[in-house]
Amino acid sequence: MSIVVVGSVAFDTVETPFGKAEKVLGGSASFFSIAAAFFTRVHLVGVVGSDFGAKELSAFDGRQIDLEGLEKQDGLTFHWQGKYSYDLNSRDTICTDLNVFESFKPKLPETYRKASHAFLGNIDPVLQREVLAQMDGPRVVACDTMNFWISGKPEELKKTLKQVDVLLVNDAEARELSGEWNLVKAARAIRAMGPRTLVIKKGEHGVIMFSDQGSFAAPAYPLEDVFDPTGAGDTFAGGFLGYLATGERIDETALRRAVVMGSTLASFSVEAFSVDRLLRLTRPEIDERFRLFKHLTHFEPL
Amino acid sequence: MSIVVVGSVAFDTVETPFGKAEKVLGGSASFFSIAAAFFTRVHLVGVVGSDFGAKELSAFDGRQIDLEGLEKQDGLTFHWQGKYSYDLNSRDTICTDLNVFESFKPKLPETYRKASHAFLGNIDPVLQREVLAQMDGPRVVACDTMNFWISGKPEELKKTLKQVDVLLVNDAEARELSGEWNLVKAARAIRAMGPRTLVIKKGEHGVIMFSDQGSFAAPAYPLEDVFDPTGAGDTFAGGFLGYLATGERIDETALRRAVVMGSTLASFSVEAFSVDRLLRLTRPEIDERFRLFKHLTHFEPL
Repeated sequence: MSIVVVGSVAFDTVETPFGKAEKVLGGSASFFSIAAAFFTRVHLVGVVGSDFGAKELSAFDGRQIDLEGLEKQDGLTFHWQGKYSYDLNSRDTICTDLNVFESFKPKLPETYRKASHAFLGNIDPVLQREVLAQMDGPRVVACDTMNFWISGKPEELKKTLKQVDVLLVNDAEARELSGEWNLVKAARAIRAMGPRTLVIKKGEHGVIMFSDQGSFAAPAYPLEDVFDPTGAGDTFAGGFLGYLATGERIDETALRRAVVMGSTLASFSVEAFSVDRLLRLTRPEIDERFRLFKHLTHFEPL
Repeated sequence: MSIVVVGSVAFDTVETPFGKAEKVLGGSASFFSIAAAFFTRVHLVGVVGSDFGAKELSAFDGRQIDLEGLEKQDGLTFHWQGKYSYDLNSRDTICTDLNVFESFKPKLPETYRKASHAFLGNIDPVLQREVLAQMDGPRVVACDTMNFWISGKPEELKKTLKQVDVLLVNDAEARELSGEWNLVKAARAIRAMGPRTLVIKKGEHGVIMFSDQGSFAAPAYPLEDVFDPTGAGDTFAGGFLGYLATGERIDETALRRAVVMGSTLASFSVEAFSVDRLLRLTRPEIDERFRLFKHLTHFEPL
């Protein structure tokens, strides 16, 4: 099994209370791919500019990540700049230079088309469908989106959602998409749009998943030092879908473990700038923190 | 085993997006007692005014709640009035009329002194110690406090905390008390002040407990209709300590179950104004929701 991921590959300039990183590797597809590749082969679809060089590409080296679908165009790579508040709970976007990403048209190499899983990162919902149209009927389609598309292209987004098995959004996005403040009501409305499984990410407050089997809540791992939250949601998605792609069955047991695996990967990601912590992460460390999640949440029945 | 609880017995006037309740029964000791009495005998210590009559007292009828320590004084009962935001996540206090509560001096009847457990509700830390001084060495002392005492009487509060086994506060209070934003660091600092167990309540985001065995995180129960959050924290404390008082051993298994039991009771409390939902709650409903908490949080190891 393998995953096609489409999304941004970017330069991030990030300022947190603990430091600043200039033009480091970022983008949803970057975080997703590195996280998911701990579990399965990842076929990346994206675009970079001529300023994206060997140094940046080296982050993907020696991992099960195919870059055949990573186009290189003349021009500059997508650049996002943001600054976090003192408590890391909010951030201001200082600039978003789409650059070559603005006219991005995902093209899947022949070798990608039979992948079993797809992750549609946060891009125009029309393009998300075009990716699916180039695939040979993936078994599981997971999808992210954001307020820009929810308010800007609601009808196109709804068409895409009809083809989605798992939607991963944050709580604000779930509320905006559904028009419901209460997350239980929001989940019911969103699941009626198509995705049988809805994963709502709440940052430091963890994740709640709504599926055919009801709801599953997982906390975020209580970390003493959160360094940079950028990419945590995409890393979560990579751990989630990467883990799901290791099994034949997508049942509730697998979905719940996938949520915890996503939370596990995300808990490492925020410990350093960019993908730095993920690059030096090992599988034993992952398994150990997954085990700590069990200790963190377990209680005995009455 | 039995619990002495000291705290407010009050009239609340509450406005939520769903309605308004005028001068209904409120106060930390009221919510705590009714929740805890599902599990064990509760000895209430508090004060009411001459406007507190048979109708209000009837809420405690037919439950294992002793009212011998509920003084009646000339004057009016403590009255709190608040209004919640549309999302119930913040509230404005419109008025706090302390009335007879202002000069409250807790006096424990002789029959209360040998109680095994104490819950020191949110009152002046000097008075909290006076309650303990009137007791015959309770096995477990749990305590609540608030920003008013954290900033107003920090040294007195620290003296009280030296005698406390379990401190229950919300996240903002934990941060203010410790001077640490990060909750893991805050917990370490607070546990060094005395309480071996710290329970941090995060409202709709659940609870995190720090004990000798590390941390335990429990979500809030995902409710479709939250009607009135008033008293949820005190109800949590009642379910928590009431459950703990049913067992001989205060070990990690008991503490974790107690957190879930507190969350269970609180999840009912918010379904109606005042103590209304708690008054018609049954033990089978409690056990069923506890079981649902297990389903909500359970995942299989790898």
